Amino acid sequence: MARIVMKFGGTSMAGIERIRSVANRVKREWAAGNEVAVVVSAMSGETDRLVGFCREASPLYDPQEYDVVVSAGEQITSGLLAIALQAVGVPARSWLGWQLPIRTSDGHASARIGEIETAGVLGAMANREVAVIPGFQGLAAGERVTTLGRGGSDTSAVAMAAALKADRCDIYTDVDGVYTTDPRIVPRARKLKRVTYEEMLELASVGAKVLQTRSVGLAMKENVRVQVLSSFVDDDAPAADTLPGTMIVGEEEVEAMERQLITGIAHDKNEAKITLTSVPDKPGAVASVFAPLADANINVDMIVQNIAHSTGSTDVTFTVPSSDLARSLDVLSRAKAEIGFESLVHDTRVAKISVVGVGMRSHAGVASKMFTTLGERGINIQAITTSEIKVSVLIHEDETELAVRVLHTAYGLDAEDVAG
Amino acid sequence: MARIVMKFGGTSMAGIERIRSVANRVKREWAAGNEVAVVVSAMSGETDRLVGFCREASPLYDPQEYDVVVSAGEQITSGLLAIALQAVGVPARSWLGWQLPIRTSDGHASARIGEIETAGVLGAMANREVAVIPGFQGLAAGERVTTLGRGGSDTSAVAMAAALKADRCDIYTDVDGVYTTDPRIVPRARKLKRVTYEEMLELASVGAKVLQTRSVGLAMKENVRVQVLSSFVDDDAPAADTLPGTMIVGEEEVEAMERQLITGIAHDKNEAKITLTSVPDKPGAVASVFAPLADANINVDMIVQNIAHSTGSTDVTFTVPSSDLARSLDVLSRAKAEIGFESLVHDTRVAKISVVGVGMRSHAGVASKMFTTLGERGINIQAITTSEIKVSVLIHEDETELAVRVLHTAYGLDAEDVAG
Repeated sequence: MARIVMKFGGTSMAGIERIRSVANRVKREWAAGNEVAVVVSAMSGETDRLVGFCREASPLYDPQEYDVVVSAGEQITSGLLAIALQAVGVPARSWLGWQLPIRTSDGHASARIGEIETAGVLGAMANREVAVIPGFQGLAAGERVTTLGRGGSDTSAVAMAAALKADRCDIYTDVDGVYTTDPRIVPRARKLKRVTYEEMLELASVGAKVLQTRSVGLAMKENVRVQVLSSFVDDDAPAADTLPGTMIVGEEEVEAMERQLITGIAHDKNEAKITLTSVPDKPGAVASVFAPLADANINVDMIVQNIAHSTGSTDVTFTVPSSDLARSLDVLSRAKAEIGFESLVHDTRVAKISVVGVGMRSHAGVASKMFTTLGERGINIQAITTSEIKVSVLIHEDETELAVRVLHTAYGLDAEDVAG
Repeated sequence: MARIVMKFGGTSMAGIERIRSVANRVKREWAAGNEVAVVVSAMSGETDRLVGFCREASPLYDPQEYDVVVSAGEQITSGLLAIALQAVGVPARSWLGWQLPIRTSDGHASARIGEIETAGVLGAMANREVAVIPGFQGLAAGERVTTLGRGGSDTSAVAMAAALKADRCDIYTDVDGVYTTDPRIVPRARKLKRVTYEEMLELASVGAKVLQTRSVGLAMKENVRVQVLSSFVDDDAPAADTLPGTMIVGEEEVEAMERQLITGIAHDKNEAKITLTSVPDKPGAVASVFAPLADANINVDMIVQNIAHSTGSTDVTFTVPSSDLARSLDVLSRAKAEIGFESLVHDTRVAKISVVGVGMRSHAGVASKMFTTLGERGINIQAITTSEIKVSVLIHEDETELAVRVLHTAYGLDAEDVAG
């Protein structure tokens, strides 16, 4: 007997046939005697449809009303899953964000979860009723509907698991676990049995699109055991505690002997590179570049400042999400006089390749091996950033697959290279 | 300056272009200094889509969860209209059913409106903000979402107008007013400037599908002045108080001189005729026919019991909504032993034609003229019912148009026949 939060994404909720299959999956856990709460996304495509309506109604839409509109997608699927569960003999009811409530900040369209009132759900579960909870939505202090930002349902699930003190948060996704790298690029990529929160954070944020980054951060903070599973397993597959997904856990749960030096190789083509040339090399110059971007809520990633030219000026290069490129160029152009750069150059044909692993903390030479391996294949490195458990490089987009493949082999991650 | 509730149906909300047009229409009333609350339907087709999902998920869906699913349609349009209003410079916000709240009975899927808390909306309107309210939805005592049944948004609008003590409830529809009969059948049909609640009730319930019957009954009870207007007038048409719609008012507001003997001719092809032959002619026999139908929540309309045969039995004929025919036949078949009829005959190829007018109270001969007119054209009358302000006959469906046309002429309703 355990208390489990199960989360199903948009692909799993796309149409009644699939919702029925989800109901059977939930029934299996419930019938095993577990207390079950389910967090659901909107049908795939639905949120895009609703966001499209808002944009069409006004490019400068009120985020408070946007939240009213887009939260409807998860409201619909939560009611439908409750109906589908009842149809297979499982008592169930939906609990909308405002009904629990799931309290959030008032940062409409990208609210953060605060307190979750769990009394209703706990009572229902104690009565052997499954609680179906729409992901992505909550309630701000003024009793207005909020949403958590795109992909927020993973975060809803983890927050729910933390609030309910669940034994496990099972996230059903399009993939059946977390791999050492993208199996479409490297067929010999290997599924990881366990991965630490820190590694998952780096893998998620650099492009292994299995879980939303915020949800992993929250899981780490709240110490929620998250399991990534395929939503496309047979209805009659065994219960999730025996399924071969990937468990995301604290570092202490990964035994020393199973800890690899490098856990995986991630890639991300959704960044764009911006270079400001001839920025005055004086105190405050860099701040004048990044302050307006921060004000515009644009996340800047890899930053490279070259050494000063003899002319007393320098070039500043960094990356932003491709979706923010136009806005970034606009912000920077408007700040041109203040920053004092000469020209503004951008390139969307770049990819970020990252080598991730908690093991690298205690091993020198990880970065060096990366640079050597790429250099041997003639792959030019345009920028570098490092963290405690990650080394990332920016390369030309066309070389993404080659880079991932040679690095996967170089770090001994190919399936034949490892035990088990 | 007036306080106005405006209501827009699904066709008016079908897509952002139309919602923008609604926003301009609302702006006109608001800019004239009026306090405005707007009640909206879901985009046309959306409620059908959502109801379809519920049915597909389970034919025996839980009405509580059905309400969660289908209420999403109006939630979406209310948020979108608020955005569209802001885009044309009109301060606006959406007030969901649970936010006001609009208290209803817990009769899920067909709840009745009770108390409406208006403090929020009154405050907003006093601040020159337009309140956008999703129709069709409310909140039951257990804080669960309810809906009012199909077409319930008209009722929401009238209830809102009553609660807000609005000067007027403007219902924007596919037609530009209430006509003496269906203009597609009789091109010389005339738009009525005023019609009484009682007449509108009869016209609505017998097939002039302009307003939902419940909403007219509520308007009468609460004495709400309802105006029916076209939603397809130009964006730059004058404000609604000068538009030539139809005003639905109390009888005292219709002056004697403008009162017609007959207000209109309605037709309804959505009924089916059922005949039970050889029902024992004894006390309680009729009750045994209609009690099981009532238990199954089937509305029986025209009832005709022929005089008893010499055999001591009688035939009972009545109509039910076509959509309830299959269920009715099923209920009656199962009660066959108890009722003791011989055979069960049904016919869906029937139409109900009704002559309506408050004037007929004081005039004999209205029914007689109806029967004579139809008889002269060889139209056979299968059943008759009358009320204080209405005479209805059941005829063969194929003769609907002919019957409406000859009656419209016979009662002097053709456009040339009347002054003005």
